[in-house]
Amino acid sequence: MLSMLVTEIGEFGLIQRLTQVLAGAGVAASSADAPFPLAIGIGDDAAAWRTQPALELATTDTVVEGVHFTRETTPWKDLGWKAMAANLSDIAAMGGAPLYALVTLGVPLQTQVEDMEALYAGMAWACKEHSAVIAGGDIVRSPVFFASITLNGYTFDAPLTRSAARPGDAIAVSGPLGGSLGGLEMMLKGIPAASADAEALRWAHRHPQPRLKEGRILVKEGVRCAMDLSDGLYDDLGKLATAGGCAVEMDAFRIPYPPALEHVFPGKAAQLALAGGEDYELLFTAPAATLERVLSRIPSAAVVGRVVAGQPGRVTVRSEDGKPIPLQQLGWDHFRS
Amino acid sequence: MLSMLVTEIGEFGLIQRLTQVLAGAGVAASSADAPFPLAIGIGDDAAAWRTQPALELATTDTVVEGVHFTRETTPWKDLGWKAMAANLSDIAAMGGAPLYALVTLGVPLQTQVEDMEALYAGMAWACKEHSAVIAGGDIVRSPVFFASITLNGYTFDAPLTRSAARPGDAIAVSGPLGGSLGGLEMMLKGIPAASADAEALRWAHRHPQPRLKEGRILVKEGVRCAMDLSDGLYDDLGKLATAGGCAVEMDAFRIPYPPALEHVFPGKAAQLALAGGEDYELLFTAPAATLERVLSRIPSAAVVGRVVAGQPGRVTVRSEDGKPIPLQQLGWDHFRS
Repeated sequence: MLSMLVTEIGEFGLIQRLTQVLAGAGVAASSADAPFPLAIGIGDDAAAWRTQPALELATTDTVVEGVHFTRETTPWKDLGWKAMAANLSDIAAMGGAPLYALVTLGVPLQTQVEDMEALYAGMAWACKEHSAVIAGGDIVRSPVFFASITLNGYTFDAPLTRSAARPGDAIAVSGPLGGSLGGLEMMLKGIPAASADAEALRWAHRHPQPRLKEGRILVKEGVRCAMDLSDGLYDDLGKLATAGGCAVEMDAFRIPYPPALEHVFPGKAAQLALAGGEDYELLFTAPAATLERVLSRIPSAAVVGRVVAGQPGRVTVRSEDGKPIPLQQLGWDHFRS
Repeated sequence: MLSMLVTEIGEFGLIQRLTQVLAGAGVAASSADAPFPLAIGIGDDAAAWRTQPALELATTDTVVEGVHFTRETTPWKDLGWKAMAANLSDIAAMGGAPLYALVTLGVPLQTQVEDMEALYAGMAWACKEHSAVIAGGDIVRSPVFFASITLNGYTFDAPLTRSAARPGDAIAVSGPLGGSLGGLEMMLKGIPAASADAEALRWAHRHPQPRLKEGRILVKEGVRCAMDLSDGLYDDLGKLATAGGCAVEMDAFRIPYPPALEHVFPGKAAQLALAGGEDYELLFTAPAATLERVLSRIPSAAVVGRVVAGQPGRVTVRSEDGKPIPLQQLGWDHFRS
């Protein structure tokens, strides 16, 4: 197939091509019976949708080439999935459902049009799986590629917030951690792995699942405090504790991780699970009785610690015998660099 | 004053400083009696506001250093104003009022913190003048500076759309054009000018006014078709005509421009007014009787042409004797490059 550069068809040619990708995937218009039906989509000065009494949510997340991804470890279609999944995950972390996305691309003129179509196919894929619609955006010239997505969502219930953690709460995560970082390390360093393990970690890196269904379960079971895990469990626990004005204790041996992680990184799986970002599992806290109901409905979820009174923002990691583990023993710096 | 680099305080330090700028300017929270009161602002996974039955609007606009601006011609505070004004203008072009903005910055590590504070002060200034609130955003590392803003708005009325132009409509603009491009040319080429003229054109380039009040007047007087002038009158007329499936005729001699433009660029003011983008005046069409009412309420507005049946998207520019002016005579390429 002949390839084509953005500079050959210009901004408006590119918009036309990408709009076709979205229309073909069925993610450029809402269904007529949607709770917030789309009135104006791509092509006007602004997108527009009809509202009803609710809480509307809005989040934004950006990826920059060379900073957040490389073409070598993330194919364009997977990048589209990941970029949209990061935004969907923020809506999940509020306990909401997604509505409309605006997508901004910063594009070097020498970019392949087919690569941008693959990127949009990946975004459309994530939208399709989670009933989101791409309602507009902007394409600008840029010396470095970036994609910035803003996603609106809604909820009719009280939202999950970062600041609602209270001493006495147990802390849980919605599923295994570290797969995304493990997959990246494996690819960057060419670490050998059995094909099933390699595939599992590559998939974890390239196709993180936004936990929208799980976010709704949290709300329905009475959880009030949640955030999504985008920067790694240790860092994100610190943010949760800071926002809630409390301290947290985490049991290193209870952190769930995918079996493939231990196969490919023997003895280091827990470290990777603690440091690794971009798994997009939910981190949440609630009284034990509430969490018990949640865990019975989310089989992959696991309790990993507890909220305590103490210096706001302090995170203590404990080993199986209850002793605090010094940060440097967690292999922290290695995986953060 | 000692200066400080972003790399010294990190992403979270920067977020903290910029949040203080917004709080200090009073644009980080809504008033309690706002029609869509803010429930969750900066700091959680998503911003959140309460909705009521209406039409919600969403637009996004991005500036990239070296592509859309240079530090030499646009100081950081003015860049903040302009970036926010571009988004406010899109909401104006729909006939709406602004609500909440999310701001994404792509920041090289060697960026001065003070520059980013000035940028935010400029955005806050534009928000303050137009009752908008900055409710969140994202800061990422990037080899090139960019700022991407998404703005939500609302209207209780029928929105103004690009596609509503009909043959027989007259075409008008809300105010003088070409000042922004004239100011840029003057600064880039060091063209000498009387100080009042220089100041007027610099101001036009750095402080375009989003026409929110004028957009509301259009709606109230029964106008249905509008867009904002961001890419230049000639290009934007083509988009309007394409969206409406009609042709347009423009009278070159009726295009309004600021007096300073003719003083600094004698004989070329109309060309600049035709080609120049980023004036953010509104372009709108309506039957003559409707436009007459509008013109009596917007003194700076002027009729510049008419919508006709014909090849969709065709733009014809006519001189005072009614003859079509060939495109190359408009000095087009010179000012577009």
